[in-house]
Amino acid sequence: MKKFINHVDDLLVESLSGFAAAHSDLVQLHLEPHYLTRKHKALDKVAIISGGGSGHEPLHSGYIGYGMLDAACPGHVFTSPTPDQMLAAAEYVHAGKGVLFIVKNYSGDVMNFEMAAEMLPFESATVLTSDDVAVNNSTYTTGRRGVAGTMIVEKCVGSLAETGANLQACKTFGDKVNSNIASMGVALTSCTVPAAGRPTFDIDHTELEMGVGIHGEPGRRREAMREADAIVKDLVAAIMEDFNMRGLHAEGSEALLLVNGFAGTPLMELYLIYNTAAKLFAKHGITVARSLVGNYTTALDMAGASITLCLLDEEIKQHWDNAVHTPALRWKI
Amino acid sequence: MKKFINHVDDLLVESLSGFAAAHSDLVQLHLEPHYLTRKHKALDKVAIISGGGSGHEPLHSGYIGYGMLDAACPGHVFTSPTPDQMLAAAEYVHAGKGVLFIVKNYSGDVMNFEMAAEMLPFESATVLTSDDVAVNNSTYTTGRRGVAGTMIVEKCVGSLAETGANLQACKTFGDKVNSNIASMGVALTSCTVPAAGRPTFDIDHTELEMGVGIHGEPGRRREAMREADAIVKDLVAAIMEDFNMRGLHAEGSEALLLVNGFAGTPLMELYLIYNTAAKLFAKHGITVARSLVGNYTTALDMAGASITLCLLDEEIKQHWDNAVHTPALRWKI
Repeated sequence: MKKFINHVDDLLVESLSGFAAAHSDLVQLHLEPHYLTRKHKALDKVAIISGGGSGHEPLHSGYIGYGMLDAACPGHVFTSPTPDQMLAAAEYVHAGKGVLFIVKNYSGDVMNFEMAAEMLPFESATVLTSDDVAVNNSTYTTGRRGVAGTMIVEKCVGSLAETGANLQACKTFGDKVNSNIASMGVALTSCTVPAAGRPTFDIDHTELEMGVGIHGEPGRRREAMREADAIVKDLVAAIMEDFNMRGLHAEGSEALLLVNGFAGTPLMELYLIYNTAAKLFAKHGITVARSLVGNYTTALDMAGASITLCLLDEEIKQHWDNAVHTPALRWKI
Repeated sequence: MKKFINHVDDLLVESLSGFAAAHSDLVQLHLEPHYLTRKHKALDKVAIISGGGSGHEPLHSGYIGYGMLDAACPGHVFTSPTPDQMLAAAEYVHAGKGVLFIVKNYSGDVMNFEMAAEMLPFESATVLTSDDVAVNNSTYTTGRRGVAGTMIVEKCVGSLAETGANLQACKTFGDKVNSNIASMGVALTSCTVPAAGRPTFDIDHTELEMGVGIHGEPGRRREAMREADAIVKDLVAAIMEDFNMRGLHAEGSEALLLVNGFAGTPLMELYLIYNTAAKLFAKHGITVARSLVGNYTTALDMAGASITLCLLDEEIKQHWDNAVHTPALRWKI
């Protein structure tokens, strides 16, 4: 394992410290318990808080700021944050209108956010994201996993919260956005968790993992490596099949297409994936009205990518388009 | 080699097509010869054009748009674009005030941009970037290599050009910004050029390449892998030594600190590098007034990173801060 680290135990705090220093105009780091908040506390709005294991950067800390999150709680690499982090963050950012937790559907995260919610002295609600169509139930989940679509939920709900919408409205909208999203990923290499020191799984140079999770957990099946168009075709087919199974009418709809890198795949290849995916979705009668290509929900150093389609209605489109100002996403400001 | 490609010969056009489709609000792709321009041609300003081999994305195409480039000419992977590309791009974007080429100092790029400049029917000038302090002369260069600092030159000159400054003023400012920059990189793994199909160089799991180039070309020396702080200390020392040798007074100056990933290194590690680098520069009496951390000048899939310091005066700072709206860099718009 070759990584830019000093000691495994210090990686998280040293990295968070660098993040907070590099973005000191936008975010503030709090330690013991660890959480990050906006530099300037927002007033008179629902407080939006996310969090989860580290190693998926810029998710979630990179999305703290106007139009998105109020706080994020980072756990150690691929490890859930603990309830004391969520409690401290919620107490710090609560502005009298309740707290909405946006939580990726992994058992550890769900349990710890639930415990925090029960202990909170004020009103809260939770949106669970579950956009990964690859598998029902898996290594770390009951039900579908939350993956790259999570940042779309955070962006849209974050925008709605800025308008002064109440907790129930934010929760309802978050659930709607999540249900409009389907994602699936593929890995060409494993990631290496620093504390483990070796790749999470073995994969041959002739193989890929179709439907991989963002922690390197198994997907649908191990398959033969093949050309990009054939891989993208299978990802798009899985996404379309999911929308159809759930009775969502993707055909004729406008959509946001997100091609997300897991970190180890060059941008050049992500754009090639986008090129093929956009054409395939168009063949399904979908109008790709918004696009995002890059490393937005990563899996440490894994080579691979995921495709996310979010069906747009006017409300979702408006909130996607609204101003945002965070370390990792910024527009109209 | 596992990559998301179809056929090696189609990689460039398929990737460019995806890029143009994903950012169709901002850029336009022209084929045969290949170049990219802003969607809406700018008027009454010096046209700023860059280009070079592909594989460094988002450099340069990702920096096309208001406040930065008017056009970019992508060669094949790690291969210079040809003069017909620069000529066609220049003719398309020329707005009556001349053309400024911003060119990384590699022999092939320099030669081809020079040939284009000679054939142009209107006034042009060239800023050569040469921020890499690792080596004087190297595999592909006479003189220092242009690396991650190039995007800082493009950002600042692009901003000046929007004010209506003339060609000579843009050229003079570009040269000044370049001379205020020093960069050095380190590789933990090799990159793999798709057409070659195997890693550019062999490197053991106990080694790093100190001073590596952005094509995987040799740096100063092969060294033993060690903890991040020790690596960063050496990079910072090389940068400070360069400023001192050139008689530039870094101490007491404000600076922009860019920690650039070569693509294969997770953001978490880049922020850890930033954390250490910022502290070390502060010890040298430098005030880190602006920061950028991420994959801005990449080397295909190489794991590694570079540190760039740009000394700021009020003029450079103002142009760095001014509005920009490109696929890869956007603020204040």
